[in-house]
Amino acid sequence: MSRALVVLSGGQDSTTCLYWALHRFGAGQVEALSFDYGQRHRIELDCARTIAARAAVPHAVLPINTFAALGGNALTDPGIAVQGVAENSTALPNTFVPGRNLIFLTFAAAYAYPRGIRHLVTGVAQTDYSGYPDCRQGTISALEQAISLGMDCDFTLHTPLMHQSKADTVRMARELGALEALADSHTCYHGQRPPCGSCPACVLRARGFAEAGIADPLLERFRTDLP
Amino acid sequence: MSRALVVLSGGQDSTTCLYWALHRFGAGQVEALSFDYGQRHRIELDCARTIAARAAVPHAVLPINTFAALGGNALTDPGIAVQGVAENSTALPNTFVPGRNLIFLTFAAAYAYPRGIRHLVTGVAQTDYSGYPDCRQGTISALEQAISLGMDCDFTLHTPLMHQSKADTVRMARELGALEALADSHTCYHGQRPPCGSCPACVLRARGFAEAGIADPLLERFRTDLP
Repeated sequence: MSRALVVLSGGQDSTTCLYWALHRFGAGQVEALSFDYGQRHRIELDCARTIAARAAVPHAVLPINTFAALGGNALTDPGIAVQGVAENSTALPNTFVPGRNLIFLTFAAAYAYPRGIRHLVTGVAQTDYSGYPDCRQGTISALEQAISLGMDCDFTLHTPLMHQSKADTVRMARELGALEALADSHTCYHGQRPPCGSCPACVLRARGFAEAGIADPLLERFRTDLP
Repeated sequence: MSRALVVLSGGQDSTTCLYWALHRFGAGQVEALSFDYGQRHRIELDCARTIAARAAVPHAVLPINTFAALGGNALTDPGIAVQGVAENSTALPNTFVPGRNLIFLTFAAAYAYPRGIRHLVTGVAQTDYSGYPDCRQGTISALEQAISLGMDCDFTLHTPLMHQSKADTVRMARELGALEALADSHTCYHGQRPPCGSCPACVLRARGFAEAGIADPLLERFRTDLP
């Protein structure tokens, strides 16, 4: 029986991937791993914990203090404001943390290695990749090879969302029964809950739900909470 | 003018690589980076600082608290004793930290990225690789591709010692004028200075100097210090 480890950020995509893994590998065969890497919004980790608990999946959080020591990007450095990037710009957004997904997946493999887990699942997507080159299939394939060679065993890196649009991902979440869990997911770059609705991440999420013709359960929840 | 970043552990091999980089890229074009990753012997970092200062090279130390959190290996876990591995064994030694060199080189690239440095130098060697699969050329080549794709720029990972025996490396150090610096390098798995002489790392080092017919300046120094 194969087992899988899902890199769970607490966002929409990795939450959908968690349910994909439960569908693909079976209940009891899936674990989740999050990273406490000095992200600006600790709420992400709370979301990841809530989501893993709801899915009844073992969940671990590994610390990484290196990105904060490197500094220089808006995701981990409180002194730098998040900037949007124009649609046709070739510039990398200032939320780009060089090598972040490479590091996450390599540490995920190091965590999986002694546990005999050889399937890693990540929610990176090339389609809506927001300018992050480490979300592309070529990067992931090269990394799969590097990790497998470097640890002398065959890892498979699963990227179920790689070629999906955000709308596809929303539809997939509904098919997998993950829609309710998305109410607990976090997307907003400004760390707001209810989400700000105007940062690039919020806009991308809203567009996906709109195109899929499905109401975002996260927004529904806060609408329900209104007096 | 190309610039290079050397991953400097404070050991014999990375020290030789630092001098290789100074020769290849020129004085003033080389920086060094070490990792404080919870290694059992903090003396390694002191050695790295001394070696970088002697070579007049800028030197940074990045923290990585993740390996200690992962636990389970003799290099970072004080509860686990270092075990030797028989010469013909195919088992990995219990000093194997899964993905260690993958992580070091990826963080080195993340450090180099904003500084415009695109050449990374590491002292890994396939020949005497002590059973570590992340020291092999195939791993390094795959990682070079993963890092270059993941950061969207062309990194070159230099491995000047890859196919050298320890004796070759000792001869190379002499040719590069690095022999004196090796007196400040650290090898012993037991963290002893003068070295224990009996752990696998000490034995490998001693054999290399013996085969090259060159006296180890580290041992010479302590011989000199005798009353």
